[in-house]
Amino acid sequence: MSSPTINEAGLPEDAPLVAVWRGPLVESVHRGRLAVCDPEGKLLEAVGDPEAYIYPRSSCKPFQALPLVLSGAADEFGLTDEELAVACASHNAEEPHLDAVRSLLRKSGLTEDNLQSGAHLPLYEPAADKLLRNGEEPRTIHGNCSGKHAGMLAVCVNEGYATASYRDPGHPLQRHILGLIAEICGLREDEVIVAGDNCGVPAFALPLRSFATGLARITTGAELSDRLARAALRIRDAMRAHPYLVAGTGRLDTELMDSTDLLVKGGAEAVLAAGSQEGWGLVLKISDGANRAVRPAALAALRGRGVDGPEAFSGVRGLHDETVGEIGPLFQAPGGTT
Amino acid sequence: MSSPTINEAGLPEDAPLVAVWRGPLVESVHRGRLAVCDPEGKLLEAVGDPEAYIYPRSSCKPFQALPLVLSGAADEFGLTDEELAVACASHNAEEPHLDAVRSLLRKSGLTEDNLQSGAHLPLYEPAADKLLRNGEEPRTIHGNCSGKHAGMLAVCVNEGYATASYRDPGHPLQRHILGLIAEICGLREDEVIVAGDNCGVPAFALPLRSFATGLARITTGAELSDRLARAALRIRDAMRAHPYLVAGTGRLDTELMDSTDLLVKGGAEAVLAAGSQEGWGLVLKISDGANRAVRPAALAALRGRGVDGPEAFSGVRGLHDETVGEIGPLFQAPGGTT
Repeated sequence: MSSPTINEAGLPEDAPLVAVWRGPLVESVHRGRLAVCDPEGKLLEAVGDPEAYIYPRSSCKPFQALPLVLSGAADEFGLTDEELAVACASHNAEEPHLDAVRSLLRKSGLTEDNLQSGAHLPLYEPAADKLLRNGEEPRTIHGNCSGKHAGMLAVCVNEGYATASYRDPGHPLQRHILGLIAEICGLREDEVIVAGDNCGVPAFALPLRSFATGLARITTGAELSDRLARAALRIRDAMRAHPYLVAGTGRLDTELMDSTDLLVKGGAEAVLAAGSQEGWGLVLKISDGANRAVRPAALAALRGRGVDGPEAFSGVRGLHDETVGEIGPLFQAPGGTT
Repeated sequence: MSSPTINEAGLPEDAPLVAVWRGPLVESVHRGRLAVCDPEGKLLEAVGDPEAYIYPRSSCKPFQALPLVLSGAADEFGLTDEELAVACASHNAEEPHLDAVRSLLRKSGLTEDNLQSGAHLPLYEPAADKLLRNGEEPRTIHGNCSGKHAGMLAVCVNEGYATASYRDPGHPLQRHILGLIAEICGLREDEVIVAGDNCGVPAFALPLRSFATGLARITTGAELSDRLARAALRIRDAMRAHPYLVAGTGRLDTELMDSTDLLVKGGAEAVLAAGSQEGWGLVLKISDGANRAVRPAALAALRGRGVDGPEAFSGVRGLHDETVGEIGPLFQAPGGTT
């Protein structure tokens, strides 16, 4: 295998965003980047390098769900907002999530067996615990991406595309999604880098700033064709109507959509995308991929934009339920009050 | 709660050590610090600031086990090398680990009920899985620190100290351990910062360089009194005789002690301490606390010191068992070949 040097790796500039204190000292620190753009592509705020690429991972799901509406599949199959929301989800595999995925599959004439999303234990610990205690093994439907895959399959059925090969980057649906992401984010297709996501469909990389711009557009409909804007707002409204189905119990996406007017979607390796109907998209990437740093960094950054949310600092608990430390934001968001 | 600025936090200088690639791009990056010192305290190598403090966390366990030998408890109770090794362990809670902890407790006239180490699921996933599938709840003995706590209790019994309060920082055993760590690492007691570890006993913080020096000393016996040197080498030899009991299946500490002549002990929040009988101690801290970065960074740093180990690069697997990326070291260790 290759052994790149630091220079070859081309690491983007970032900044310390979150610290984990133990006693009087910082024990660990998380760096990151963030960009806030308006639908015209104007950079309103940045920490670190906004031009460097990120993999938004599951933060792309609202974009990946657009063909459900654009193709007419949503209308053809009479999909509910619940089913559209779970198609955009990185869900906890709680019962209502599984029910929504099953219903989406059933309306397309498919079953769990058609899902190629890969199996893993439910993200929600009590659901994982219950499954193990029942002597079961996780199935593909438990994977947090099963709604996205069910949505992709519904489009294939409606369009008459092959369903067995839907994960292939060359499949017409995946080509269509690539084109949509490029168009909405203001890029040429060859400026979007395509790699593989853990669930087996394409993962996209693009400049942080471009993704924040695309997010501002799908949250507001601004700077999009009428047809794209209508589809985007239908997806946005479905996600905002059912925040629980987009993530689940204890999850930041759900909590923020429940308590604010934002469109929120997280992604693996510590990405958070939050779009405001006031006309901006904020994208955060914790450089080391640590999920624990997303909440404090995102809440501090959002407070800097005037969004009131939960307290950004929280205690770190030991095994005797005592507080052994604290995790919280290090940075003063530009113009912020944190 | 307070809201410190970056300046107040006083973050130490570090450097990018490990990258996680996906497709052609770095998706995530882990920074860190490392120091290599000889027993005289000479700094042989450093990445980042060697004077800044770290919490070695469980990398302190070999130091915390010294009173077992120094107090005479090991001889009085006829402790085996297996029992001394598990007293230094962050173990996987596989059956041999539990057996060794039970045996150590029994020889001190105690039981699992005396342990105050806190319960968590076994670190070893198949052991955790089995416990859940059997409908059991994790007990204190399953906690990775249960051997350390059993060792502390054995000293208390032998010295006539109170056993119920053994976790208290003011308890004579904990005061004794603080004094030992300061002495071995060449510090005054008031230069060692005492906070709380997750298992409820003191966690110590000290300069990275001082801890690397202390590690070089306990691995070689050099620069220590005869009495301390004898105790240190007995602990070292017990750990090296039973690497599996110090950690377990699939763990880096075990693998490295099995394949090299190093003394190796990891700690929570991504610390690794590796002492060479050739006369140096290497301490690594991944700044963000990510365990996944310890292996590639440590293997690259050790290769830089002439230690042959396993390949430092490894693939990142998706849910279909395909390779979606790679994790590996970014840095050229000083004088190294990686």
